[in-house]
Amino acid sequence: MVHELDTMLKPGSIAVVGAARERPGVNWVDIFGRIVEFGYEGRLYPVNPRADEIRGHQAYPSVSSLPETADLVIIALAAPHVPEVLRECADTGHRNVHIFSAGFGEIGEEEGDELQHSIEHIAAEGALRVIGPNSMGLYVPDLRLVTWTGASALPGPVAVVGQSGGFVDAAVGYGSRLGLSFSTVVNYGSGLTVDATSLIDYLATDDRTGIITAYLEGVNDGQRLLDVVRQAVPKKPVVIVKPGRTEAAARTVASHTGSLAGNERIWEAFFAQSGAIRATSVPDLMNTTLALLKLPRPGGPRVAVIGTGGGSSVAAADAFSQAGLEVPAFGAETLKRLRAVIPASGNIITNPIDAHDVMTDVSLMPGVLDVLGEADNVDMVIVYFHIDWMSDVGPDRVPALADFLANAASSHVAGKPLVVTWRSYRPDPEMARIAREMESTLLAAGIPVFPDLEHTARALANLVKYHSFLEDPP
Amino acid sequence: MVHELDTMLKPGSIAVVGAARERPGVNWVDIFGRIVEFGYEGRLYPVNPRADEIRGHQAYPSVSSLPETADLVIIALAAPHVPEVLRECADTGHRNVHIFSAGFGEIGEEEGDELQHSIEHIAAEGALRVIGPNSMGLYVPDLRLVTWTGASALPGPVAVVGQSGGFVDAAVGYGSRLGLSFSTVVNYGSGLTVDATSLIDYLATDDRTGIITAYLEGVNDGQRLLDVVRQAVPKKPVVIVKPGRTEAAARTVASHTGSLAGNERIWEAFFAQSGAIRATSVPDLMNTTLALLKLPRPGGPRVAVIGTGGGSSVAAADAFSQAGLEVPAFGAETLKRLRAVIPASGNIITNPIDAHDVMTDVSLMPGVLDVLGEADNVDMVIVYFHIDWMSDVGPDRVPALADFLANAASSHVAGKPLVVTWRSYRPDPEMARIAREMESTLLAAGIPVFPDLEHTARALANLVKYHSFLEDPP
Repeated sequence: MVHELDTMLKPGSIAVVGAARERPGVNWVDIFGRIVEFGYEGRLYPVNPRADEIRGHQAYPSVSSLPETADLVIIALAAPHVPEVLRECADTGHRNVHIFSAGFGEIGEEEGDELQHSIEHIAAEGALRVIGPNSMGLYVPDLRLVTWTGASALPGPVAVVGQSGGFVDAAVGYGSRLGLSFSTVVNYGSGLTVDATSLIDYLATDDRTGIITAYLEGVNDGQRLLDVVRQAVPKKPVVIVKPGRTEAAARTVASHTGSLAGNERIWEAFFAQSGAIRATSVPDLMNTTLALLKLPRPGGPRVAVIGTGGGSSVAAADAFSQAGLEVPAFGAETLKRLRAVIPASGNIITNPIDAHDVMTDVSLMPGVLDVLGEADNVDMVIVYFHIDWMSDVGPDRVPALADFLANAASSHVAGKPLVVTWRSYRPDPEMARIAREMESTLLAAGIPVFPDLEHTARALANLVKYHSFLEDPP
Repeated sequence: MVHELDTMLKPGSIAVVGAARERPGVNWVDIFGRIVEFGYEGRLYPVNPRADEIRGHQAYPSVSSLPETADLVIIALAAPHVPEVLRECADTGHRNVHIFSAGFGEIGEEEGDELQHSIEHIAAEGALRVIGPNSMGLYVPDLRLVTWTGASALPGPVAVVGQSGGFVDAAVGYGSRLGLSFSTVVNYGSGLTVDATSLIDYLATDDRTGIITAYLEGVNDGQRLLDVVRQAVPKKPVVIVKPGRTEAAARTVASHTGSLAGNERIWEAFFAQSGAIRATSVPDLMNTTLALLKLPRPGGPRVAVIGTGGGSSVAAADAFSQAGLEVPAFGAETLKRLRAVIPASGNIITNPIDAHDVMTDVSLMPGVLDVLGEADNVDMVIVYFHIDWMSDVGPDRVPALADFLANAASSHVAGKPLVVTWRSYRPDPEMARIAREMESTLLAAGIPVFPDLEHTARALANLVKYHSFLEDPP
């Protein structure tokens, strides 16, 4: 079954109303130029009455003069000109529209409110599907389609939808840093007719999408969102950042997208009932996505941590426990086997394991991972690099351990999720370089790396939450 | 009045028992070599019966053969040899000892327990002051004294004391990155007689120390710690990381330093009654220190935020509110004045202010800061850089705004605290470079920069908490 948003979000042809004739100044967003430069391979129609041709594409004076009904019309004109073009779209059978322009209901001024009523009326009458207004639009790497900058051409399984352009852009940027690639990204702005609900409904049916992530400031129809997310969750994880927990934030939401943030208790019930995972920030959203995409289902919430440093063992125990995971004491058999592979002197064999020798002598690590892989009360394994101290022992220690984990860790943990986190506090660019290389090595091998204990704990707790929901829905 | 720890922590002479004759292997810590290389200018006595001279210093066969009573004796021998040397110290009037060695009560084995009892007995009989065992020791830049690596020679106002060597090392590293310098840093390990309580008591009297920071896994005498901190707080801020909130962490504390983490409720009462500020991590500890050292007393908890991006305005409102600060709506007069200096189009004039134009056109910033400086219900101002977007507008925008703030911000905010935070999510090393330069510019000018909204909110909430306590103690 083809979803009603399919044509709009996988367009074979695009018209851009307000395509700029020449390279514009810094404060002008040249959507048409971006689409051309990103290499969109569908049919592309610049609409501009004062041009014959733009960047090698024949220009048209109006939507009604196009040689075909475009799958998507993008309107990039000042707000007062938008209703007229929208009317023309409705009259000529163009049903899919992205309004880039801002200056409607979201600004809270009389003129904007009037324009808002006008486009709402036209859209309803013409049964239009409208992304925006006040929206950066689409990024669909598979079609080489983007309406903003900074995106990679490599397609992947992550979908992102959100009201805030800045948030969506940040999610794509941070996700790219983690080696994630994207299927469909939509900044829908004020969400005239196409909003998070309809987009999640579409993405649940989209085979290229393996995980749906969203930034939601508010919704119009909470019950419908609940229904849609409930349908989606068994097929693929849905991870949502819902800000506005505090009164000040709710007020800010109103001035940003004009939507109501809603009651925090209702949102808590929504997450509990739908099985959507709640993330708290851009990094949390993308770290959770990385965990859900790369890690197998954990047997439960019990983690074992191996690192170096007593203070950091205490901090790790606090961080994982506070996130709702468990850091169990090892059983007698596990302790006995660990004592056989870890030298007694200078290492504290408990959970978290504080073992300088294991972290700096890679030949000891397989034995330790074997024991943790077979330990009854361990569901997940975290290796906690201390970049500074390991590098003091030898500049090769961090890359050696990263290489070993990248190549061989999976054969030592009996199918349990294994992730890496790290710390480096020294003001030394060399430590930063070593950390970056370690991240690249591990991420390329599919081993998630998180920037600190708190982010690791949240991502793993979210992983457990998703699988618990699937196994035992309310 | 001279504090009883004064001689020990400002030693004019040091003996190192177990000074290595030659540069040792990677797993050996060469304390004597470190002291020499850091340039300690007091009298230095290597003690090693198999050497005549070490690194240009005449060597002595034993503590009893030293030409004077050393102000500090450092013992760097394997644990079984420590009691004998400690006895010799007691017999020869050496009262201040730092035991570097590990392998005592903290390892939870019978042999360690016996050695622990032995040194406790000798220390009590001889009325010795002992730092350690299992302790990295001292870092006192003013005396060019360090017993570990990686430290700057520049002295400053920040004191750090802690049980965990890793934590203390990390605090110094992270603090250095923020441009902080140190007065006295002590890793006291198991704290045989010298512990956080006696060190805080000393540091309260130390004129070179402007702020006391500590990492505490547990204490022996809670009432005495409360008394000492209560005395210190009116003189200078005391900021403490107390981990072990969870059961798993409390168990880990026991295996790390052998101390009891204590009941979380008791610790909460301790913080409320003493006026010590509780930090949660190394970054939080040093960010709070930066705020307390560099910022004037805020008039209250009300912040104004200026940045760019609607989603991030919502996130900022959430972060500051959740930390216990307030993000008030601006009054009518403030709004009117802001509207006169910020262009209406594309900017949302509310609190947080979402004003792309102000963030990218530095000529607008003085007017905005003037209004916020004079606004009745604003106590602190936060400028929130979006490195990626600002740099898209022009590569000079971030440095231009940083330069303006560094040079002139203080003359526009009417004595209110002003801080900077920022975000950059794009996987582009150039963005990282721009962010680092911005940090350097601002930190050099005494303007605190925090890595994200959460850390900013915590540091400012801690600043407010300290001054509220001073004004209105319980």
